[in-house]
Amino acid sequence: MSLAPLERIPISGPPAESVVWAGEGLLRDAGRYLHSPSGRFVVAATPAAEAAAGPVREALGERLLTRIAVADTEDVKTLASVERIADAALAAGLRRDDAFVAVGGGVVTDMVGFAAAILLRGVAWNAVPTTTAGMADAAIGGKTGVNHRLGKNLLGAFHPPAVILVDPAALATLPERDFRAGLVEAYKDAWIADAALAERSSQRLPAVLARDTAALLDLLAGSVRVKAVVVASDPREGGRRRLLNFGHTLGHALEAAAGFGPGGLRHGEAVAWGIAAALEISQRRAGLSARDAAAIRAVLGRLGPFPEPVRDRERLSAFLARDKKSTSRGLASVLLTSLGDARVDESVPPEEWLDAAAIMSLS
Amino acid sequence: MSLAPLERIPISGPPAESVVWAGEGLLRDAGRYLHSPSGRFVVAATPAAEAAAGPVREALGERLLTRIAVADTEDVKTLASVERIADAALAAGLRRDDAFVAVGGGVVTDMVGFAAAILLRGVAWNAVPTTTAGMADAAIGGKTGVNHRLGKNLLGAFHPPAVILVDPAALATLPERDFRAGLVEAYKDAWIADAALAERSSQRLPAVLARDTAALLDLLAGSVRVKAVVVASDPREGGRRRLLNFGHTLGHALEAAAGFGPGGLRHGEAVAWGIAAALEISQRRAGLSARDAAAIRAVLGRLGPFPEPVRDRERLSAFLARDKKSTSRGLASVLLTSLGDARVDESVPPEEWLDAAAIMSLS
Repeated sequence: MSLAPLERIPISGPPAESVVWAGEGLLRDAGRYLHSPSGRFVVAATPAAEAAAGPVREALGERLLTRIAVADTEDVKTLASVERIADAALAAGLRRDDAFVAVGGGVVTDMVGFAAAILLRGVAWNAVPTTTAGMADAAIGGKTGVNHRLGKNLLGAFHPPAVILVDPAALATLPERDFRAGLVEAYKDAWIADAALAERSSQRLPAVLARDTAALLDLLAGSVRVKAVVVASDPREGGRRRLLNFGHTLGHALEAAAGFGPGGLRHGEAVAWGIAAALEISQRRAGLSARDAAAIRAVLGRLGPFPEPVRDRERLSAFLARDKKSTSRGLASVLLTSLGDARVDESVPPEEWLDAAAIMSLS
Repeated sequence: MSLAPLERIPISGPPAESVVWAGEGLLRDAGRYLHSPSGRFVVAATPAAEAAAGPVREALGERLLTRIAVADTEDVKTLASVERIADAALAAGLRRDDAFVAVGGGVVTDMVGFAAAILLRGVAWNAVPTTTAGMADAAIGGKTGVNHRLGKNLLGAFHPPAVILVDPAALATLPERDFRAGLVEAYKDAWIADAALAERSSQRLPAVLARDTAALLDLLAGSVRVKAVVVASDPREGGRRRLLNFGHTLGHALEAAAGFGPGGLRHGEAVAWGIAAALEISQRRAGLSARDAAAIRAVLGRLGPFPEPVRDRERLSAFLARDKKSTSRGLASVLLTSLGDARVDESVPPEEWLDAAAIMSLS
């Protein structure tokens, strides 16, 4: 069977380098790509990710030190769960030069990465995301952590994985709603920084939605490449890296207003609505053409339909006010100037976002 | 009241810089020396350290966000205790630019430093050690962490305190046995790298034992200076930094063989015996003069008397075999060539340490 060539994308630190491998066949060749100083691995996976975790464990063969089953709902993303992962790894004889492999969605990579950060004051880990959101986003930047009853991700560490495998085969059992919500982040990366990728992925949207391997790989690897370039150009998160937050200013408020339970919006769904609002403001403030805005809206519409968000001014206003990027001049907001190009406008008043929320649409 | 001049000793990273302030009056002037990006502090202290924590909290005044009581026995040095510290800090409204102050012994600085490492993916912290061991040793290098039922310090992070205050007033209520055991490490630093400090502190031993402020400060600040120079010259812990382990090869085995409970040896006591054994080997292998060896033995004898250690070959042998610095050629061992000068000998067979353990003495 002939495979497309693999792509190797280095992500520079701080605090450390990561390498993303994107391609077909990575799961069953995982033994060649995953990194462990000792050559030994602890594989932690959710039951839902078994279709991907099985081939990875098989590929590691004798080098598998132990396997750990991890749950993957936000309510189990706690320090106690991290301690259970640590217990199992230490009981199996984990040494400082061994490495973890986290197979699953963002909850799993966040928890296993955090366990790796604090075990023996830091061991290496690898991520095998099994969600489109995880492939496009979660592992890059090295944020790991768990929730606290007072808020999400309040306990954690910066501890980037050594290697991240992006293999569309790992998405095989991903529910359709999660599949589509995660794609929003991948398209978003194209829109802010890669016009050619945006055009191509727009034309190939039917193939992407049909989970065609080549189309998916082109989009997902492209999204990783955008992040790698942006992160490398701005390690301290003050400048260009902020562009990755396109759609997130209102998106975060919409996500919080909907609540984080099962009845809420997926992160990607909230970002889709946040992008729709950002298009309104971009047309007014940043010269985005009606044609480009319509093209993006059309893609978002076909990625959906997404659940209706809260549009109530008062409720949204309270959540917008908590935005970390708020200054006395307004909210630091990412606006699109054209397909593939974005900039930060420091002075968008919250009222303008609330106006946009009232009229935003995904068609 | 006129005070001796303060000494400022920078400790270079990685992963970050620390500054040690050594002098009188630091506790009540803590507000000028402790570091917090926001200016706000969370002070965590043990009940036993109240005599030091009180003045620190008073000095911070309105800038005290909250206070947290922490226990300080090895059995409470757990992830659950760290979570309780995190709970209290978050409930008080801790933000990313606030800072912790840990007032107490090594257990407290290890736990509070670790809480600071993982809260909001890392906030600043300060250490106010209230033990001689803590002043001479614990905070330097930035190792923080907690115990696991399978071993000590198995969960943790490298997260150096921004500032460490070394004020002899903080030792006021330290029990005599702990006071003397901790001094072993301070003298040890002089012996490996500072002949003048070693001579001076040997002559002033009666004043040191009487807790005379000037004599204590000279010894403790000198010990910090030795560590600062050694750590800066060897950030990756492969070369000169190993000299700090003088007395620790056999010392760790003696400490483990005695058990870590209340009936065991204090770390400093085990190191004292380990130094006594290292003197035997140093005379044979490294040309240490009988006069220098006797001078050191005399200081150790007057710091004690220390409890008798296990000398049984078979029991010690099992613990020596676990030494991380073991190679096929022997144990990497720090030997003294003369007062103030040491080197590493990679080829000392374990048998030679067991022979030395049989004859070592502290008089």
